[in-house]
Amino acid sequence: MDNIKASLITIGDELLIGQVIDTNSAWMAQQLNAIGIAVDRRVAVGDNKGIIWNALGDELTWADVVLITGGLGPTADDITKPLLCEYFGGKLVIDQAVLQHVEAIFARLNRPMIDRNRKQAEVPDVCTVLHNERGTAPGMLFEKDGKLVISMPGVPHEMKGIMTDHVLPLLQNRFQLPCIVHRTLLTAGVGESFLADHIQAWEEALPAHIKLAYLPNYGMVRLRLTATGMEAHTVAAEVDAQFSALAALVAPFLVTTADESMAAVVLRLLQQQQATMSTAESCTGGYIAHLLTSLPGSSQGYWGSVVSYHNQVKENLLGVNPHDLEADGAVSETVVRQMVAGALSQLKTHYAVAVSGIMGPNGGSPLKPVGTVWVAVASATQVVTENFHFRFDRTRNIELTATFALNMLRKLILSQGGATP
Amino acid sequence: MDNIKASLITIGDELLIGQVIDTNSAWMAQQLNAIGIAVDRRVAVGDNKGIIWNALGDELTWADVVLITGGLGPTADDITKPLLCEYFGGKLVIDQAVLQHVEAIFARLNRPMIDRNRKQAEVPDVCTVLHNERGTAPGMLFEKDGKLVISMPGVPHEMKGIMTDHVLPLLQNRFQLPCIVHRTLLTAGVGESFLADHIQAWEEALPAHIKLAYLPNYGMVRLRLTATGMEAHTVAAEVDAQFSALAALVAPFLVTTADESMAAVVLRLLQQQQATMSTAESCTGGYIAHLLTSLPGSSQGYWGSVVSYHNQVKENLLGVNPHDLEADGAVSETVVRQMVAGALSQLKTHYAVAVSGIMGPNGGSPLKPVGTVWVAVASATQVVTENFHFRFDRTRNIELTATFALNMLRKLILSQGGATP
Repeated sequence: MDNIKASLITIGDELLIGQVIDTNSAWMAQQLNAIGIAVDRRVAVGDNKGIIWNALGDELTWADVVLITGGLGPTADDITKPLLCEYFGGKLVIDQAVLQHVEAIFARLNRPMIDRNRKQAEVPDVCTVLHNERGTAPGMLFEKDGKLVISMPGVPHEMKGIMTDHVLPLLQNRFQLPCIVHRTLLTAGVGESFLADHIQAWEEALPAHIKLAYLPNYGMVRLRLTATGMEAHTVAAEVDAQFSALAALVAPFLVTTADESMAAVVLRLLQQQQATMSTAESCTGGYIAHLLTSLPGSSQGYWGSVVSYHNQVKENLLGVNPHDLEADGAVSETVVRQMVAGALSQLKTHYAVAVSGIMGPNGGSPLKPVGTVWVAVASATQVVTENFHFRFDRTRNIELTATFALNMLRKLILSQGGATP
Repeated sequence: MDNIKASLITIGDELLIGQVIDTNSAWMAQQLNAIGIAVDRRVAVGDNKGIIWNALGDELTWADVVLITGGLGPTADDITKPLLCEYFGGKLVIDQAVLQHVEAIFARLNRPMIDRNRKQAEVPDVCTVLHNERGTAPGMLFEKDGKLVISMPGVPHEMKGIMTDHVLPLLQNRFQLPCIVHRTLLTAGVGESFLADHIQAWEEALPAHIKLAYLPNYGMVRLRLTATGMEAHTVAAEVDAQFSALAALVAPFLVTTADESMAAVVLRLLQQQQATMSTAESCTGGYIAHLLTSLPGSSQGYWGSVVSYHNQVKENLLGVNPHDLEADGAVSETVVRQMVAGALSQLKTHYAVAVSGIMGPNGGSPLKPVGTVWVAVASATQVVTENFHFRFDRTRNIELTATFALNMLRKLILSQGGATP
């Protein structure tokens, strides 16, 4: 069995001045781990020849595989291709297959093809071309002293296509890879320290080749077990046994034993009851709807939302009483109760969630400071409300409100598990 | 003037198996660049003592400042603090101020404080403590051979608090920093290659200390000019002149000359007309509403949305004709016209956007494949519709639809600039 280690190098000034967030690396790391290749380091560097050159040399001292993304575009700041050509001692030549592919893309888009685009078909004569079905810049594979260097464009869907079509199969063929098994569960309502104390005896008794990690995020803590071994069957059995023990220990706080989001759990529970839900969102402004509808197949259980940002929308579309809005304010138990009732009756679903709050940075008052939130969840027969006080920035307050609201609905759906909704 | 270079080290296995996306680095890089410190490299490593130790040594060979995030939690996989203590030759001691702060947090949350939490108050006696107002793990500053190493928790809002309260002022005091000026503009509707060709002569004439970068993203291309110099006034004047020339060259495709999102531009234009808008979203499922309401103050111009995921919601809340839904299908010009009319009349706004499409991976048909989208934008006097065909995954199709729809609305608002809406 080969113990293969990978490094990821992402190239682009935009990563070092903070203009874009690197989402590629996380996806690549996931895919590599899944086939048994550990990523020990990731490096991000700018569009600077000397720094890229040195980074490549550094990573090749310890890594068996170096995956590079970025710097392959058609513009002057894209220097990865000539640099790699020089590094591996080749020269740039037109690749006819790539040229035809680029021409076909421009023909399909009905756009004129310029010299700059034609250059995308130049590749170092010392590499193997990895066809980029989804764009004009091809992937490139270089080999040196038994190590592999693979260059891909930084455009996420192009990189993902090349990884799936070429890189992952190629790595699996080339190496005899070990088995890495991850199992994760999600808890809500307790902190990381409390959980750690709660499971301390079990954690300390874990064998050395099984590791536990705590991943706290937005009012939830995900726990991840990772086991490494030679033989897939044995590793899976071992990790399953430990995972069952862990799940039993944290049962009171357990949301799911799958690697799925809170929104996915809610949709799954709805499907089990063949039930439907809707939302009435004020302060989250459509974010709960977005979390649900980001998931393929969500239309089965999720029917829609009234994003009632303005009070007139609360009155006109959800039937909230203007006198109560005046007397208690939009952020009140009275109003979220009317909002959730309005969602149930107007959108005609079995369940509904309503939220109203002050997300900041402005809009707070001494009685209702920024972070004050009311949530109501309801079925035909029951309404549950709760008041929260978050203390974070607008983005995080929105995310926390969505998470806590969905968790309240999850519990309500579970509590009605027996009844046909 | 000091030419100060920084490196960022992020610590955590979750970054190397792809379970979380690193958003901290982008924010930190932004802040450092803004005060004139260039980030030349970023490294992510797992919870592994040897690898962290070596990474710190490597980065200190070239960087003046190394900022470390992560690995400061209360659980067994958090090893940054003892490692830094050993690296800088200190020993762990209780810091009374930190202890009182941790105790106060637990008292406020009304949670029992356990030994594990008390350990958060232990710090190496060779560091300066940087108070963490927002959490239990303090920041730590170490100095060695004139270089600074700063460790912060990985929780984003805690890191941001420590950076803002302590790290940035401290770096500005310590060093005489150069002036780095970024100016960005956003274009829509043209590709990167076309833009590059269009502005080639201007780009080639740029002085060496001003760099241009192309940042393509979701149907838009952001262009960024970066200038470095000694004297703030001169650098700003130079970059302003080049920036004006660039903006004039790309005028037909220009969305904004500020570093703001498409949604922010739309809200700003609405405010200039003292006008309001609403949305009727099917396939984007609340994402357009979320983009708008993520922005502070959006309630001024944005009134709300009907997320009409299910056809019954289109009929009941937006007044879409069931016969047209049957005859033309939900993804049709007829239906988005009725949706946008429904949004205008039901939410009583000056402008509205409606979208309906098939985002994938399922739900396509030969006549309407995945990626087929209809968008309508409307004012009281005008309706504009457009049909799109995206070819990406669900997430990207949703993002592209939102961007193109908001761009259509932006053009409509601009075209009605003279009229009181």
